[in-house]
Amino acid sequence: MSQPSLFTPAALAAKTAGRLDGLCPVETITGAASLADAGPTDVTFLANEKYGHLLSATQAPLVLVPVDYPEPPPQGKAWVRCQNPSKAFTALVMLFAPPPPARPAGIHLAAVVDATARIAASAHIGACAVIAANAVIGERTIVMPGTFIGENAVIGDDCLIYPNVTIRERCIIGQRVILHPGVVIGADGFGYDSDATGHSKIPQLGIVEIGDDVEIGANSCVDRARFGVTRIGDGTKIDNLVQIGHNVVTGKACMIVAQVGIAGSTTIGNGVVLAGQAGVVGHLKVGDGAIVMAKAGVTKDLPPKAVVFGMPAADRREFARDAMFIRKLPEICATLKKLQSELDALKKQ
Amino acid sequence: MSQPSLFTPAALAAKTAGRLDGLCPVETITGAASLADAGPTDVTFLANEKYGHLLSATQAPLVLVPVDYPEPPPQGKAWVRCQNPSKAFTALVMLFAPPPPARPAGIHLAAVVDATARIAASAHIGACAVIAANAVIGERTIVMPGTFIGENAVIGDDCLIYPNVTIRERCIIGQRVILHPGVVIGADGFGYDSDATGHSKIPQLGIVEIGDDVEIGANSCVDRARFGVTRIGDGTKIDNLVQIGHNVVTGKACMIVAQVGIAGSTTIGNGVVLAGQAGVVGHLKVGDGAIVMAKAGVTKDLPPKAVVFGMPAADRREFARDAMFIRKLPEICATLKKLQSELDALKKQ
Amino acid sequence: MSQPSLFTPAALAAKTAGRLDGLCPVETITGAASLADAGPTDVTFLANEKYGHLLSATQAPLVLVPVDYPEPPPQGKAWVRCQNPSKAFTALVMLFAPPPPARPAGIHLAAVVDATARIAASAHIGACAVIAANAVIGERTIVMPGTFIGENAVIGDDCLIYPNVTIRERCIIGQRVILHPGVVIGADGFGYDSDATGHSKIPQLGIVEIGDDVEIGANSCVDRARFGVTRIGDGTKIDNLVQIGHNVVTGKACMIVAQVGIAGSTTIGNGVVLAGQAGVVGHLKVGDGAIVMAKAGVTKDLPPKAVVFGMPAADRREFARDAMFIRKLPEICATLKKLQSELDALKKQ
Repeated sequence: MSQPSLFTPAALAAKTAGRLDGLCPVETITGAASLADAGPTDVTFLANEKYGHLLSATQAPLVLVPVDYPEPPPQGKAWVRCQNPSKAFTALVMLFAPPPPARPAGIHLAAVVDATARIAASAHIGACAVIAANAVIGERTIVMPGTFIGENAVIGDDCLIYPNVTIRERCIIGQRVILHPGVVIGADGFGYDSDATGHSKIPQLGIVEIGDDVEIGANSCVDRARFGVTRIGDGTKIDNLVQIGHNVVTGKACMIVAQVGIAGSTTIGNGVVLAGQAGVVGHLKVGDGAIVMAKAGVTKDLPPKAVVFGMPAADRREFARDAMFIRKLPEICATLKKLQSELDALKKQ
Repeated sequence: MSQPSLFTPAALAAKTAGRLDGLCPVETITGAASLADAGPTDVTFLANEKYGHLLSATQAPLVLVPVDYPEPPPQGKAWVRCQNPSKAFTALVMLFAPPPPARPAGIHLAAVVDATARIAASAHIGACAVIAANAVIGERTIVMPGTFIGENAVIGDDCLIYPNVTIRERCIIGQRVILHPGVVIGADGFGYDSDATGHSKIPQLGIVEIGDDVEIGANSCVDRARFGVTRIGDGTKIDNLVQIGHNVVTGKACMIVAQVGIAGSTTIGNGVVLAGQAGVVGHLKVGDGAIVMAKAGVTKDLPPKAVVFGMPAADRREFARDAMFIRKLPEICATLKKLQSELDALKKQ
Repeated sequence: MSQPSLFTPAALAAKTAGRLDGLCPVETITGAASLADAGPTDVTFLANEKYGHLLSATQAPLVLVPVDYPEPPPQGKAWVRCQNPSKAFTALVMLFAPPPPARPAGIHLAAVVDATARIAASAHIGACAVIAANAVIGERTIVMPGTFIGENAVIGDDCLIYPNVTIRERCIIGQRVILHPGVVIGADGFGYDSDATGHSKIPQLGIVEIGDDVEIGANSCVDRARFGVTRIGDGTKIDNLVQIGHNVVTGKACMIVAQVGIAGSTTIGNGVVLAGQAGVVGHLKVGDGAIVMAKAGVTKDLPPKAVVFGMPAADRREFARDAMFIRKLPEICATLKKLQSELDALKKQ
């Protein structure tokens, strides 16, 4: 905020490559906030028509709207008409946001790094992080406090490993990977030989390999393979509290939303979306571009671009048809009764 | 247990403000346990009629029962008739329970506290806790080992932050808040701009603000807002392994049971109950006092005091009606067959 | 790999107590991998008929198959016919696997151990582990970095406690127990006295007691009892992200798969299987050997050996019957329409 001229309505409109429409009643914008939270000197945005009703109530004098938004700005407000108001707004928010915390290169005095670990000179290792023997940490990678990196694990360049993460021995993390707090990479898969005397543990001797540009949410878990590799494909994004079983392979650019579970040895194609709290049983194949809707439970292979819902998961249209027919049941029963009485009347004749 | 006279049946009855009914065969009670676990010198309690059958089998000579419990005490047992046996029993259990571990004021030598952090003199900071620049810790607040408090985070007075918690930069925690082990406050929300080339991260620039008297269970996650605030209202209680998405706002005094997920930008009213493993999709409003039953999946706005079940969640009565009609389907098919044959017989005539 | 003669096909076959069938084209096997991943000098195995189609494509020259596998080995491959190919393969994999990381006896200089804790001489305590007053750690037990062991907690012999685990005060862990990273033992149960003014916390004064040979997966939680004990029976195996409520008692040798939740005071018999994402409400009894299928929600007591599915969970056959009838609904509606028109025609005559 050192250069207030950056924060005139015209300057902000230019920054979005948008067009200022109407007269903004303030000369300097001081912050950025949602329609509901914005104050009288904030910029805000409308991306989703769903929130159109908040426009009249917002205190913000300046609003990013889609280029072709049909309404003119009302008295006391100006629009910035721009291509992608949501994306443009993010750029403006970043002008006002405090800078992210500095994580300078170097190893904190209270970090515990084994003498055989290889830490890039530009990496940052936080206090109480523990790096075991022969681990490798790439350039500019940040390892935050309380995180454990196991023996022979390899972390690529430009990764951001938040506090209290555990990465077990020999696991491999790509470039530009973000692991949020509490993530566990490479815990043993859930495998036992069971008989009448109980369950004897099957050693879990493989590893986890995380591709480039992957992000994994807080307290999510990716189990190491029984042998071989549990693999998360490049560009796949995983939300919080997700469970990925041993020997699972996900494709590239999947979206795996919070609290999803994928059981062992299942293969997920490219660009698959698993919505919140969905589950997939083990040893299945889910085709490229499939969408598993929230809370659905997949119990058999899915073809590419399938869209499924329910438990057991079925084609979304099939599920909707079933639901529609179930809703008709009272009517069906009434019709049956009527037919019976008409028939009885006929028989009496 | 230094003053055994405190532990006579009469003294314990007085402590509950209850009335001793019957003759207790032991002079000193030495412990407190459930009906099933109690030994011959323990006090126990009956709060839930469901457990009435355990009364005859319990070894406890002294039982807290509701004031109007219809049965008299059998030979060899005494009742304490009291207003709220469950609450009264808790008070007695605390007489026998070991005191909680001492957490004296001060910063452990093995804690890592940035020179710019402001730690109240009465606060306790445990070993291997890491407190970053400009963080503020209130009076009598306890921060246990292995916990990370990020830059500029503000923790109020009388909070209890258990081990291995992560609170990221700028988040704000109220007074008397309890965060159980492994909780993650302020991880990035799950937000991307997606197109054919993949998913590009939307910066998550906001914070989390936790109200007063909130309790959050082990390994639960509350994501920071995209911009603005993810807010947990005063007095709301959250169980273990719960996921709260970015920009969610919960009201006051909600109960959010284990493994619930609330997707981004949803607003939850006051006094809402979300039972175990329930889910709510994003951008919804759940009205005050609504009850979402276990495993239900809410896919549209709920009015105040709604009670819903199933996925997609529907009014509990609607769900029950559907289930009842589904149970009638075999009968419907039989009736259809019978009608058909009656009709066929009629046609032949 | 120092003694290559150990790795001839014949030596490997002998190791499995199996019979070599066919001529293996390589003299020394250099690794072990799955059918799909194996290279031209690896051994692999076929345990599940489901993967038979991969046999023709695998590059592995040596395959463990069941004793009675009907096909002869094709040109360029040899079978090892053996009793349990999966188990036998694990033994071979261990020949090739890197040894597990060494965890020598002793307390790391950067561990923080209270002077009153009793640590067995053969135990390993990692860096930044914190052991509180009067805790007891058994012989050969490994406590990894960042783990917190609370006051008066007792850990048995030969346990493996991974990083960033939290075990709260007074909890008791048996022998040969494995706790994966992020596990939380003994957090407060979720209990409140609620009225119009809000929710007041019920103290959670009991403990958790974990039996022998129990394994608990990453980021799973077992809450301490309100009073008395939350108990996990000997030999029970728990996967990742599981929630066990206060005062739950599980029997011996149960299998509790990822993301299951068991609410407070429920009793689970011996040998029960709870499949992924299943839930059980509070205060129930689940009989010995019951199977709760994936995502099922148990809302009433289950008899021994029950097999249930759905929410609310019902006998698997009942659920299948309902589903079959629902699928018939379009046909039912069509029949109704036809009957109506036949009847109308008849009435006109």
